[in-house]
Amino acid sequence: MRQLAIPNETKIVLAVVDGLGGLPHPDTGRSELEAADTRHLDRLAAESACGLTVPVAPGVTPGSGPGHLALFGYDPLRYTVGRGVLEGLGIDFDLQPQDVAARGNFCTLDGAGKIVDRRAGRIATEQSAPLCETLATIELPGTQLFVEPVRDHRFLLVLRPESGELSDRLADTDPQREGVAPLAARALAPEAKPAAELVDRFVAGARDRLNGAAANGLTLRGFARRPDLPSMPEAFALRAAAVAVYPMYRGLAKLAGMSVLTTGTTYDDELATVRERWDDFDFFFIHYKAADTAGEDGDFQAKTAALEAFDRAVPALLDLGADVLMIAGDHSTPAALAGHSWHPVPFLLHSPWARRDSVDAFDEESCLHGALGVFPAVDALPIAMAHARRFTKYGA
Amino acid sequence: MRQLAIPNETKIVLAVVDGLGGLPHPDTGRSELEAADTRHLDRLAAESACGLTVPVAPGVTPGSGPGHLALFGYDPLRYTVGRGVLEGLGIDFDLQPQDVAARGNFCTLDGAGKIVDRRAGRIATEQSAPLCETLATIELPGTQLFVEPVRDHRFLLVLRPESGELSDRLADTDPQREGVAPLAARALAPEAKPAAELVDRFVAGARDRLNGAAANGLTLRGFARRPDLPSMPEAFALRAAAVAVYPMYRGLAKLAGMSVLTTGTTYDDELATVRERWDDFDFFFIHYKAADTAGEDGDFQAKTAALEAFDRAVPALLDLGADVLMIAGDHSTPAALAGHSWHPVPFLLHSPWARRDSVDAFDEESCLHGALGVFPAVDALPIAMAHARRFTKYGA
Repeated sequence: MRQLAIPNETKIVLAVVDGLGGLPHPDTGRSELEAADTRHLDRLAAESACGLTVPVAPGVTPGSGPGHLALFGYDPLRYTVGRGVLEGLGIDFDLQPQDVAARGNFCTLDGAGKIVDRRAGRIATEQSAPLCETLATIELPGTQLFVEPVRDHRFLLVLRPESGELSDRLADTDPQREGVAPLAARALAPEAKPAAELVDRFVAGARDRLNGAAANGLTLRGFARRPDLPSMPEAFALRAAAVAVYPMYRGLAKLAGMSVLTTGTTYDDELATVRERWDDFDFFFIHYKAADTAGEDGDFQAKTAALEAFDRAVPALLDLGADVLMIAGDHSTPAALAGHSWHPVPFLLHSPWARRDSVDAFDEESCLHGALGVFPAVDALPIAMAHARRFTKYGA
Repeated sequence: MRQLAIPNETKIVLAVVDGLGGLPHPDTGRSELEAADTRHLDRLAAESACGLTVPVAPGVTPGSGPGHLALFGYDPLRYTVGRGVLEGLGIDFDLQPQDVAARGNFCTLDGAGKIVDRRAGRIATEQSAPLCETLATIELPGTQLFVEPVRDHRFLLVLRPESGELSDRLADTDPQREGVAPLAARALAPEAKPAAELVDRFVAGARDRLNGAAANGLTLRGFARRPDLPSMPEAFALRAAAVAVYPMYRGLAKLAGMSVLTTGTTYDDELATVRERWDDFDFFFIHYKAADTAGEDGDFQAKTAALEAFDRAVPALLDLGADVLMIAGDHSTPAALAGHSWHPVPFLLHSPWARRDSVDAFDEESCLHGALGVFPAVDALPIAMAHARRFTKYGA
């Protein structure tokens, strides 16, 4: 793809509706998109090439990382974002390439050191934040330590070597059950032994400092370093920008090499930011979160309302005047499942060069009959590049 | 595939309509195929399994080489045909495996040796042919030299080592712009240094001989050797023949190991040739060019007319009595884009064993709903082999 990319003046907008796809409501047989009044999306679908994206692989339910990486043009089976890294992205922590990050949970230990509550009674952030500050005072040889509160009992641990490399090939210390002690750090590869020792030292230091606290223990999982992704802007010769209210999505875009733009707290703010910076970039990733949140809550009505709210923003999206506008989802989040799912996700591509199809509604069933068919999400960006006339011919 | 192929008495015809697919006309919303009176194709579609082929990969616009190689059963991302080789095929030059071929352009240099016209005023073939003859007299050590006129300012350079190997890993000498001198030959790999020296010697010899000529300089690009393709007839156990008016398509078929049959100058001539040699082969590739030419010219009406002319030949194609008849395109060439495009290409397969579908018109939108769906072009030949009962079962 890198060899095909050529410069052009055209603009591409990727509007991601998080958790876009759904499933029929058991009472009505209609999915969230079918039940919602999405008149603008339906009209746009009639003028677009439609299809359904398979986020990772058939039957595979993606997390937010792979769902987005695929839409950014990365094979999500090849490029992975570890849990620790995602946790860091989620709180806007500025992860460096040498950092080893892990997700931490405060827990409650009994007198014998066994876990009696894996979440320390879901201790409030106000209580866990001071504990993080205390833990950050632990001293580790040759290593900078960061302990950042995330929410409730969750925190982020980052080990930053002052020189050299630190491996992230460490097993979780979280035994994933109660009645046993947290596990000792264990290297999964010989080169991870120094990292395992550092983690053990940290845990030992924490034991002293947490003695008598609201949470007297901790577990760690998802040790990971930032993935070394090829730069999406370089690979596709695009000045690429990301606009997202939630830090995790800004972080994923940053991993892909996009410029992350400062924006406000609403989708209208995001669109205003795109308008302001329209001339500075060729590609904009714009993130809409509310549909996923409602789906995760299992709230069909709230998801329908979130989709309708997005629909009302579609005219403004169109008014941006992109040469190629994609409406996509990182995965489905059916309210019926109250979580992410493996189902293909409705997709549309609006462009003067898009093939016509007979689809005139934007939903799971209609998009099935669209010109783009059911296709891997990782192909979306190359297809958009073609429609933006930013790919040269392959082969003589 | 090679292990699945079994002998049979059945015949397969692959009728390629170059540049078959199109895009809607902005005034009517109908594509070339939709606008054309293709009554025979439509009737055939109703009795066939239809689909759309993706020539190379989603979003990728193929040249003629990859577009045809895919239909011949080769993964076009794995097997590539360099520009120099394609240029040789296009003038029926009998390229040998050891030959290094390049596309040459005559250009005009100023007193300082800088390019002032990259095409030497599009010098006519009548003027460039004698220059080629002159250049062919240059002597290179241990190497036979061929300089063949192609058209206007274009020529073919072939270096044929009298013994041993010559690498084609050379950078273009064409700087792709004016105001600078042609580049010196540059080896892209250590083993290409001897080839680079030969090219520099050739260019030096040309400088003397072109002094004062209508074109006093030259640039070279697309250095390439014939790709080492597995033989398609062997891999599929087929006696395969190619019938094409234009040399480039005969050349591509020859690379694939097909027998190239002598034919006339029209599609009727091609069909007559196939009839004459019907008993001698199991597989016929028959090439129809006019649709692509009209599309490249951006002439919607001419493309419609070319498709109608092809349609009139469909009864004769059917009368051949093949067990499997495929109507396919190497790529789309929408008049709206005046060039090749990435859009999937209508495809039909006629056979007693083809799955029924509801498609009753042969166009982009109708084929989308066909039994074959949207599928990689490289799968077309295996699918045809199956319908011809020329594949055995895979696995016990």
